[in-house]
Amino acid sequence: MDFIAPLDALFLLAESREHPMHVSSLQLLEPPEGTGPEYVREFRERLLADRELRPTFRKRPATWLGAPQLAWRLDDDVELDYHVGRRAIASPGHLDDLLEYTSALHSQLLDRHRPLWEMRFIEGLADGRFALFTKMHHALIDGVSAQRVLRRTLSTDPTDQTVMRPWNLPRKTRVASHKPGVGGLIKGAGSSLAGIAKAADVGLRKQQLTLPYAAPRTMFNVPIGGARRCAVRSWPMDRIKQVKKATGTTVNDVVLAMSAGALRAYLLERQALPDKPMIAFVPMSVRDPDDTDTQGVKIAALLCNLGTDVADPLERLEVIADSTRRNKQVYQSLSPTQTMALSALMLSPLVPMFLPGFAAVGAPPFNIVISNVPGAKEPLYWNGARLDASYPLSIPLDGQAINITLTSTGDNLDFGLVGCRRTVPDLHRLLDHLEDSLASLEAAAN
Amino acid sequence: MDFIAPLDALFLLAESREHPMHVSSLQLLEPPEGTGPEYVREFRERLLADRELRPTFRKRPATWLGAPQLAWRLDDDVELDYHVGRRAIASPGHLDDLLEYTSALHSQLLDRHRPLWEMRFIEGLADGRFALFTKMHHALIDGVSAQRVLRRTLSTDPTDQTVMRPWNLPRKTRVASHKPGVGGLIKGAGSSLAGIAKAADVGLRKQQLTLPYAAPRTMFNVPIGGARRCAVRSWPMDRIKQVKKATGTTVNDVVLAMSAGALRAYLLERQALPDKPMIAFVPMSVRDPDDTDTQGVKIAALLCNLGTDVADPLERLEVIADSTRRNKQVYQSLSPTQTMALSALMLSPLVPMFLPGFAAVGAPPFNIVISNVPGAKEPLYWNGARLDASYPLSIPLDGQAINITLTSTGDNLDFGLVGCRRTVPDLHRLLDHLEDSLASLEAAAN
Repeated sequence: MDFIAPLDALFLLAESREHPMHVSSLQLLEPPEGTGPEYVREFRERLLADRELRPTFRKRPATWLGAPQLAWRLDDDVELDYHVGRRAIASPGHLDDLLEYTSALHSQLLDRHRPLWEMRFIEGLADGRFALFTKMHHALIDGVSAQRVLRRTLSTDPTDQTVMRPWNLPRKTRVASHKPGVGGLIKGAGSSLAGIAKAADVGLRKQQLTLPYAAPRTMFNVPIGGARRCAVRSWPMDRIKQVKKATGTTVNDVVLAMSAGALRAYLLERQALPDKPMIAFVPMSVRDPDDTDTQGVKIAALLCNLGTDVADPLERLEVIADSTRRNKQVYQSLSPTQTMALSALMLSPLVPMFLPGFAAVGAPPFNIVISNVPGAKEPLYWNGARLDASYPLSIPLDGQAINITLTSTGDNLDFGLVGCRRTVPDLHRLLDHLEDSLASLEAAAN
Repeated sequence: MDFIAPLDALFLLAESREHPMHVSSLQLLEPPEGTGPEYVREFRERLLADRELRPTFRKRPATWLGAPQLAWRLDDDVELDYHVGRRAIASPGHLDDLLEYTSALHSQLLDRHRPLWEMRFIEGLADGRFALFTKMHHALIDGVSAQRVLRRTLSTDPTDQTVMRPWNLPRKTRVASHKPGVGGLIKGAGSSLAGIAKAADVGLRKQQLTLPYAAPRTMFNVPIGGARRCAVRSWPMDRIKQVKKATGTTVNDVVLAMSAGALRAYLLERQALPDKPMIAFVPMSVRDPDDTDTQGVKIAALLCNLGTDVADPLERLEVIADSTRRNKQVYQSLSPTQTMALSALMLSPLVPMFLPGFAAVGAPPFNIVISNVPGAKEPLYWNGARLDASYPLSIPLDGQAINITLTSTGDNLDFGLVGCRRTVPDLHRLLDHLEDSLASLEAAAN
């Protein structure tokens, strides 16, 4: 038995029916030309033929009288047929039907008596594609690493016949068990109190950073239930890049501005827009371009002013770009330890969110998590099937009833929205608002 | 707010990820001739057009900080689209594919932030039929009443165009909220201590009844996990009736003998057959044929000696028939109050099973619950679709890793088996053993 790292254990201890703590991914794949309806079934059977599993995919929490102990047990006899299932969606097999089912899958707790992951091949899409839904517990792996594992099964060669299994990838340094997320950051910070003090001094004294607890309370910052609704859509990266070029900002700034405009429209529609600007929690890489040390993780958490109080789309983009720019300047002037420490300071407000009931009384440290996960630019294939989209689906928390996570696939940006089904009505409306928001940025920038 | 009856509350308090406390039903229906693939979709839409719901279908537990309070809240705004979903099964759409999906559905906890029931129309069966999976929390309704609600939506007339909705049936005395199960019995007994004493005296002194805690420990009497496996099959009622006639026993005796033979074969195959005979817990109506009082509930719980230590099928049937006959003689000599009190005595061993960890230490009071739920003899239709089968799926408990529940549909007996997916391997083998067991009874009886 292995002891579970304290922050990973938090994801197990804080989990409840209302707060599943897994990250998911919904991938859309196009079967190779000339294959029939049996393609998915046969592919899954080929995958299951090799039953060797890496330790990450064999880990389950040791339990005692139903409560988790703080140790992992390695399962020697994993029922792979259970973990890698085959399902279908109802007719007519449109994306809406897939999302209705995806929402149900993302709402369900993983079985703790088994390794904490599941994959579902989903048939029945009217356009002939199939979907792959993957769910992994956050105690096992963070969202960025989960996406990386899935990408490592893919090949740039459509004729590549090697069947790569996510649960048995060839060894490589720091893959599945590597966690650059909250855990590492807070642990790193904890190891250097002097670092925290220094970073706080740099960050706070200079007044350049957006600080937590300045966020207004919104309809998203409430306690949540256990059922989820998922909404996804892809946008051509070219459209975002053109706005970026015309305005001298970054892809991430434009994405945040798209999101900010959509949130503003959504809240206006419900007469629920706060006077003060909303604050987004944005995990972000701050690696120095000259930094060739591939080992060091430099992910920082920015708190970004979304400018939702500003009506003009270009002005709003400027508020956002200014906010991220100043954040980055501070981060880039810091040593690696200081960066980690400052991030920990920013992240620390997350911890109370794991406590049930906290959201009902505390002020929200920020309004929403918007996360841009690294993706792939080139077309990718799995056993000849082309990856069309890959939507990351993350974790709403008490006080954070909605989450926006995105990644790139080929020429597209894939947005995955997850909302508490009870407290966030009409989540799909946000997709239309995202499109409108991008269109108004394009109109204003050109 | 309504306070929850103490025994109903027990089903909420005892529920955990390892112990979902809902009963389900899997119905197979044949669409009317001449209808196309849109039949199910359109039927569901017609059903959802009326959004009025009876209180049972609007009840959810009031919660505070995630823990249930002992009160019901009536939901005024039920998201019917969520409760009545549309799903499909993977290709090739055989019964096995449906059962794989049914197992997943029956394993999932109901969302406590909503009324505690769900229905899923399931498409994709290769033979053109569709399935209806219904799940209701036991705190809301017991298995017998749930089956009755579903049956009341059906008509004997295939051309009947009245769309009956389970959630809004016309008023009738004692329907959804009526509970003849464990709850009523124990409450009844509690109200009459003298009745218990009298019944215990009659039952125990005469040594005619099989008493709890005489059961051997088997592989089924262990703590369980949260994942389930479901297995179902139908047998022609005529085959059972012929054995009954040839042997002078009852349908229920033959069903118990079928089950006993199957359990014996299953355990022999695994070299796990206990020397002592297994004891089944059998809920059973003991209404006197002359009793015309339709209000009184006379369900008693028999503990039946299954004779699993006997190799000869006819001898085994005799052990069973003798055991149920003596049980009934005692019950029939009792007053209604005494019947209820004696049943409560038999049922009392169930209560500790709700306590986690109990199964690990206590001796099993019995080995398995085998329940024959009243069904229908005539062909039934829902909106013109013929009901082919109706499989009840019940609740395994700690120490009771497998459950057999059956009911009749037209000319068939429909068996629904539910097992803990971790501790009961190859559940479908039991179906083959049930067939073999019936065949050997037929061979021996004729």
